[in-house]
Amino acid sequence: MRFILPVLDQSQSSGMVNENEWFLEPMESKGTLFGLKLDGERLHAEQSAFQHIEIYQTETFGKLMVIDGCVMLTDRDNFLYHEMIAHPALCLHPNPRRVLIIGGGDCGTLREVLRHPQVESAVQVDIDERVTRLAEEYFPALCDSNDDARAQLLFDDGIAYVRNAADQAFDLIIVDSTDPVGPAEGLFNRAFYAQCHRALADDGILVQQSESPLIHLELIQQVHASMKGEGFAATRLVNFPQPVYPSGWWSATLAFKQAEGAQRQADSARVEAISADTLYFNAATLNGALALPNFVAKALAEKA
Amino acid sequence: MRFILPVLDQSQSSGMVNENEWFLEPMESKGTLFGLKLDGERLHAEQSAFQHIEIYQTETFGKLMVIDGCVMLTDRDNFLYHEMIAHPALCLHPNPRRVLIIGGGDCGTLREVLRHPQVESAVQVDIDERVTRLAEEYFPALCDSNDDARAQLLFDDGIAYVRNAADQAFDLIIVDSTDPVGPAEGLFNRAFYAQCHRALADDGILVQQSESPLIHLELIQQVHASMKGEGFAATRLVNFPQPVYPSGWWSATLAFKQAEGAQRQADSARVEAISADTLYFNAATLNGALALPNFVAKALAEKA
Repeated sequence: MRFILPVLDQSQSSGMVNENEWFLEPMESKGTLFGLKLDGERLHAEQSAFQHIEIYQTETFGKLMVIDGCVMLTDRDNFLYHEMIAHPALCLHPNPRRVLIIGGGDCGTLREVLRHPQVESAVQVDIDERVTRLAEEYFPALCDSNDDARAQLLFDDGIAYVRNAADQAFDLIIVDSTDPVGPAEGLFNRAFYAQCHRALADDGILVQQSESPLIHLELIQQVHASMKGEGFAATRLVNFPQPVYPSGWWSATLAFKQAEGAQRQADSARVEAISADTLYFNAATLNGALALPNFVAKALAEKA
Repeated sequence: MRFILPVLDQSQSSGMVNENEWFLEPMESKGTLFGLKLDGERLHAEQSAFQHIEIYQTETFGKLMVIDGCVMLTDRDNFLYHEMIAHPALCLHPNPRRVLIIGGGDCGTLREVLRHPQVESAVQVDIDERVTRLAEEYFPALCDSNDDARAQLLFDDGIAYVRNAADQAFDLIIVDSTDPVGPAEGLFNRAFYAQCHRALADDGILVQQSESPLIHLELIQQVHASMKGEGFAATRLVNFPQPVYPSGWWSATLAFKQAEGAQRQADSARVEAISADTLYFNAATLNGALALPNFVAKALAEKA
């Protein structure tokens, strides 16, 4: 079977519903495409001040949020990303009390962060309040912890927020952003990493979603090199499955201010406690996520 | 963006080449779709005695083989599947001398098996000779070891081959098949597992590709339960990324005749030796592949 893919412009994007309707995300630059079968009409679409946001009902993955044509999350598999961007760093940090989340407007990362009783405050700074409002409406489970007394939800420029933060204000900064284009572009550069470095305590860890180990390997090299260039002593890569993102294989990069941080073992009591409520994360999958395939290790050794 | 996907029948599948041409594989039953951007005309298509085989040139994944509309392999990422269906079992077995591969006509698994100097014979039985002939032409690297004196390539019915095999004839049987429909359907049933059990030595291991931990979890449960039902003492799941297969996350199931086999650690000297030439497999990724996410462990504990 071979299909000719019609390219429709956004004005046509509320096309008719029929039995063969799929949401398709072609990633032209990488030559891959992912799609989910839809169930019924699009539930919501809007152009916010920052981006185009859509909500669909899929046939098999629950609800789907799309931003600027890119799949952000589905009900069915967001646990992989949210657990793995949060828990590895939280369990590797000796005492994560003050957490900053940049982006993360769907609140799924915030929920995972607040599962850790050690966390005393979690500030989420997403530039687009509409993402959070739509998450509250269409993905209420992700917003379970928004009313936690430790949570603070801000809708503001994350880059400016970090620039204005006090020195050593945070133990953990998690950059839970969209791809490095559009509003998120400034979250993938050295000036931003330098400010994160300054705003982290000495034993602090910066976490950034860092795309696919297979098809974005050069980006991962650049992210690691840039973080080290701005003073982080060491980096580690966390990799995990994420079916709805390009290639189905995704990563987060951890940058440690102190070299010994990258040598530290995860706190096994905390790993065990958290694993009681997770779907993917546990001591074994944490070690698996930190395991580097040969081709990734080689790429990071060559340039990172 | 939203696209309406045209459903074309196979007679139209040599559709015109244009700048927006993709190979798309919709998996209707699971509601997911994967696509690769093509580069130029389809290189080959034929209806063999058993299935419809196509070869394409993709823009970013090298050559692509498609059987009955399903992606079989690409140049770029087949190393993940081939390394992970072969090396875990070979390194967990105490002394894998006699290996049988059922299916595997592209010869990539055979190549990985023959990297192990302990292997004295490797018999590959694929029902469709055309797959191997096309692999030789379009994926010559995978066929690197076809002339190895230890290799025997047979084109025959793998189910009958196992049924006719002597008791305890093999140390390892690897079922490297297509999905459990069409010619491969009989490779996913209890009668076949019973024959594999008989044809394996006491410390033998049966390996079967077992689809996606996320979207085929029930099938994985059934495979494990069926293997145990036919006398295998224990099973383990190996999971790994495989971007071109549905969900981008794939698995192989290992069934051990003896319970102690499933407790055995991999031979670390062999793991280290093999890892010198692999792109994904090493001691750390092996442990990672054997790590069960909580939801998978729960599913296998409930029914397997």
